[in-house]
Amino acid sequence: MSDEAGRAFVPGHVTGFFSIHEADDPKQAGSRGAGLTLSTGVTVTVEPAEESSIELNGEFAAVESGRRVLDELDVTARVSAQTDLPLGAGFGVSGAFALGTAFAVNDAFDRGRSENELVTLAHGAEVEAGTGLGDVVAQVRGGIPIRLEPGAPEYNRLDGIPMRTGIEYCSLGELSTAEVLSGSTDQLSQAGVESLVALVNEPTLDTFMRQSRIFAEETGLLTDEMREVIEDVHDAGGQASMAMLGETVFALDSGLSDAGYDATACETHHAGATLLD
Amino acid sequence: MSDEAGRAFVPGHVTGFFSIHEADDPKQAGSRGAGLTLSTGVTVTVEPAEESSIELNGEFAAVESGRRVLDELDVTARVSAQTDLPLGAGFGVSGAFALGTAFAVNDAFDRGRSENELVTLAHGAEVEAGTGLGDVVAQVRGGIPIRLEPGAPEYNRLDGIPMRTGIEYCSLGELSTAEVLSGSTDQLSQAGVESLVALVNEPTLDTFMRQSRIFAEETGLLTDEMREVIEDVHDAGGQASMAMLGETVFALDSGLSDAGYDATACETHHAGATLLD
Repeated sequence: MSDEAGRAFVPGHVTGFFSIHEADDPKQAGSRGAGLTLSTGVTVTVEPAEESSIELNGEFAAVESGRRVLDELDVTARVSAQTDLPLGAGFGVSGAFALGTAFAVNDAFDRGRSENELVTLAHGAEVEAGTGLGDVVAQVRGGIPIRLEPGAPEYNRLDGIPMRTGIEYCSLGELSTAEVLSGSTDQLSQAGVESLVALVNEPTLDTFMRQSRIFAEETGLLTDEMREVIEDVHDAGGQASMAMLGETVFALDSGLSDAGYDATACETHHAGATLLD
Repeated sequence: MSDEAGRAFVPGHVTGFFSIHEADDPKQAGSRGAGLTLSTGVTVTVEPAEESSIELNGEFAAVESGRRVLDELDVTARVSAQTDLPLGAGFGVSGAFALGTAFAVNDAFDRGRSENELVTLAHGAEVEAGTGLGDVVAQVRGGIPIRLEPGAPEYNRLDGIPMRTGIEYCSLGELSTAEVLSGSTDQLSQAGVESLVALVNEPTLDTFMRQSRIFAEETGLLTDEMREVIEDVHDAGGQASMAMLGETVFALDSGLSDAGYDATACETHHAGATLLD
């Protein structure tokens, strides 16, 4: 066992639309859909320790997906993560935490797992924690991933929109992924599949944004406050929608600031999860 | 049609070992094996033009794979590529050219293809030109790709070694991919599959380098001159092997300069092919 630290960066991910696919095996469970990976993400550092602990932005945190990854890789370690992304707001922070922990542990403890094995671990941890269904497999790919088939790498099928763009976002509050996913989701999944079919027919950013907007409306997840922000962006000539699942509006380029909102800027990320020196 | 230029960067790729898989359909043909993608690569710029032309490092070049991509996407364009990689020396320059052209054309001419569709085009162009079998699918992934199953994205299966490393290389001369691939390759493919099985059992850089060295020896592709360089690197405590297919030695970290050779340094690339601004 090496006693060096391991470090990994994982991009944030906002989903525009999705459908839910349940399965007893967490490797086969997941979601289909599409989203944007973000240049702003989560940096995870892992160091061997007498007892396992998890910190997020300097505070102890009970990140269930991360704890499960430590258990699966059979290590006791101090895991500390830093992020500028808002928490519980639809940016895939728990997925990034799980994936970054898996990559960093494998590196620091010479676990000798392959990339697919680590992604499978992190995806399963997210699914079992109930905190996400598709972020991990998107975050390892980077870019603008289209999730054609759900699940871990052994089962899934991905594609991507070969474009890049500036992004702005603005978070109005939190939304519990676990709570939404535990409700009735048939209508949501039907809307998600329809949006996916439309995107596969025309895999462009325009279609992605348009379908995201339709999905947010049809699923009833859009609050009046978010709708108002999105319409202001449209009125100013931009494109915006809602991050699934958070009370967050995201827009292409400078769409939110053009409409007069105080927004945070980043861009699509082109690498996916990476080990750091 | 946009009249803006499109630009893409594609990492170089050295294959350590491979097996050949023929098929009538170029989407199903390809290779299995493993390699390193490089931070040094090929930058491709595409602009609409009255007549198609292809330049590499400022000189007109007949890059068959690139010409086929232009035809498939039905555009006439001026394609100019820049690279610091040696040509015909096992760095996947023709694959990078094909893939970069596909991404840049799609962007400049708003062709609306998905990433998988562009990779399929570029992979097919390489296979039909006889200049490569596995570079394109590795170059779009980045990192240290393991090609578990051959072919375009619809058919292939990839994994990766989740590690990063410095790399040095030193080219002694050219080797024609088309010539080697047109000879008898049964023994080569058997050795390639054996190396792949060993790497899947232990997906680490150590195993990759050891199996690459065994493959180079067993296939008879290693010349005395390359063997001498590789042994010097080993004697100096490093790890080196031969790039498939070129008269090129590559080593981890500063292996070649530690052994007294004048080498070029780069590192593994973690993004795969990306559009540039």
